Amino acid sequence: MCKEVNRRNRLPVDDYVQGVLKRNRAIFAQTITLVESNSSADMETAQAVLKQLHPYTGKSIRIGITGVPGVGKSTFIEGFGSLLCERGHRVAVLAIDPSSTITRGSILGDKTRMENLSKNPNAFIRPSASGGMLGGVARKTRETIFVCEAAGFDVILVETVGVGQSEVTVRSMVDFFLLLQITGAGDELQGMKKGVMELVDAILINKADGVNKQKALIAQSEYNGILHYLQPATKGWETKAYTCSSLTGEGLDEVWSMIQLFHKKTNESGVFSKRRQKQNLDWLHYMVEDYLRMNFYTHPKVTKVLPQIEQAVTEGTLSATMAANELVRNRNQ
Amino acid sequence: MCKEVNRRNRLPVDDYVQGVLKRNRAIFAQTITLVESNSSADMETAQAVLKQLHPYTGKSIRIGITGVPGVGKSTFIEGFGSLLCERGHRVAVLAIDPSSTITRGSILGDKTRMENLSKNPNAFIRPSASGGMLGGVARKTRETIFVCEAAGFDVILVETVGVGQSEVTVRSMVDFFLLLQITGAGDELQGMKKGVMELVDAILINKADGVNKQKALIAQSEYNGILHYLQPATKGWETKAYTCSSLTGEGLDEVWSMIQLFHKKTNESGVFSKRRQKQNLDWLHYMVEDYLRMNFYTHPKVTKVLPQIEQAVTEGTLSATMAANELVRNRNQ
Repeated sequence: MCKEVNRRNRLPVDDYVQGVLKRNRAIFAQTITLVESNSSADMETAQAVLKQLHPYTGKSIRIGITGVPGVGKSTFIEGFGSLLCERGHRVAVLAIDPSSTITRGSILGDKTRMENLSKNPNAFIRPSASGGMLGGVARKTRETIFVCEAAGFDVILVETVGVGQSEVTVRSMVDFFLLLQITGAGDELQGMKKGVMELVDAILINKADGVNKQKALIAQSEYNGILHYLQPATKGWETKAYTCSSLTGEGLDEVWSMIQLFHKKTNESGVFSKRRQKQNLDWLHYMVEDYLRMNFYTHPKVTKVLPQIEQAVTEGTLSATMAANELVRNRNQ
Repeated sequence: MCKEVNRRNRLPVDDYVQGVLKRNRAIFAQTITLVESNSSADMETAQAVLKQLHPYTGKSIRIGITGVPGVGKSTFIEGFGSLLCERGHRVAVLAIDPSSTITRGSILGDKTRMENLSKNPNAFIRPSASGGMLGGVARKTRETIFVCEAAGFDVILVETVGVGQSEVTVRSMVDFFLLLQITGAGDELQGMKKGVMELVDAILINKADGVNKQKALIAQSEYNGILHYLQPATKGWETKAYTCSSLTGEGLDEVWSMIQLFHKKTNESGVFSKRRQKQNLDWLHYMVEDYLRMNFYTHPKVTKVLPQIEQAVTEGTLSATMAANELVRNRNQ
């Protein structure tokens, strides 16, 4: 559906709200399109809708999933999501792909990657929103989570490819964060992206089947050795390595039990709700600062002088402090 | 010297500049006091002085040193700094202590901690500036580095206790970053602050003397095992663990050789100058954003509504997006 048509067909706020709460599939999808829209009129409507949906949000477990291309994220989500649906859960699969700008990006662009899950009436799959900047994509995904929760989805999976800062962004919006890995040529731990092991609540070695199984078990024990020395991402929870095979389904059950245990433990300790409160507050300040930055750096008085000032700072002919003062002075003139 | 006297006695800009360049100890110290001052008149003079000193800055190696209290940072700096002075270097020791607010803070407040070095005519020791916020302290330290370089100090040591974000801040202003550790009760690696190992260019196990020596060697090999799996902080340089005894002086020589090798290698590869350029640009944007944040959050129209908005977000009755919009709307009214 092209944006022009969508804009013309905008519904009254209440229709979106009732549609989502009544789990009307078509209106639910339209609401997400509305939330993802970059038009300012749509954004205003979207905020009014979200305001009314707000009391119905929050009742899910939000699970982040990261891993480089090739670790089998789609196959894992297909298998894991189907298992959850069988158990009576309603599963929404969202994605954060900062590389998606104009197009729908490289992950989840193609629903055929998760053919069975996408046909399941209790599942909903949405490709990454496009938004130019990670901040924009992240805002849309956060708000899509709310819409999904209001529509009764109780497990939200947020997938990312781990480009740039996307893992930190996903961590800031999920309760539980899972890193998918596979075994490689012996030294697979080396060169792992900085700090990722300290962001996640579990490392799951996928493709632990056939000739790979033995290797996966060795990798598991290597990861556990390293994790032992790192601070866990969640207070009171020990991050450990697990194995599974998305192909045979082996281990998927255990992953869900482990996440349920995490949910139970963090709920009891209060860590779960404290994290969500902190995420909300951080998000508030992030959005304010994002607005301030954008407002400043897109101001004509700033854009006019920025290139030469940056050049002078890079060349070392102007100190950063003086450059900052000059930019601010230009803006306020 | 109290601030009032200092303000009344402010020198002409050129006197500061000439004093620093001629290595006049008294004027040099006054210039740093000027740079550290929070009075806006002083800040203006300071910027004029720094502008003139700018062409004389940059010709040093800037070394960050972190480690929790008790690892022997002062003793190490005392021994290491004295060794460098013997070799003909001029050594400035600065500190970043975000806990220092009104007082001079907890580290380097007492020069007697480095009695020999503080008497050395080729050394200069300055306690952490006070500034309330880490950003303020960091700005002052960065500018103090410039003053020291203009005064001919060719080795700058920047010490931090590693509270909060201070390691990231120090990393953003030094060429080489050193983590001091000691051996503890076997499991000393556990509970190490998140991500620190991936910020540093070397881990130095101090107090490797007497009965401790064997333990230190074991710890060294353990650290090397972990480091093997982490991405190094500096491209083309392998972060490794070393041992030394600040008490006997053993190993200090090797530390300096290692840093010199780092300097040579990164200079040849261009990584050294690229990092400094990036640090300058990052610093420019950091300061602009710091200004924007301060300007926004201290505005009466924002401070008036902020507590209740934050409360609503924490309680979950207001979404972060709506809260951000409301804050911005209030500010722009």
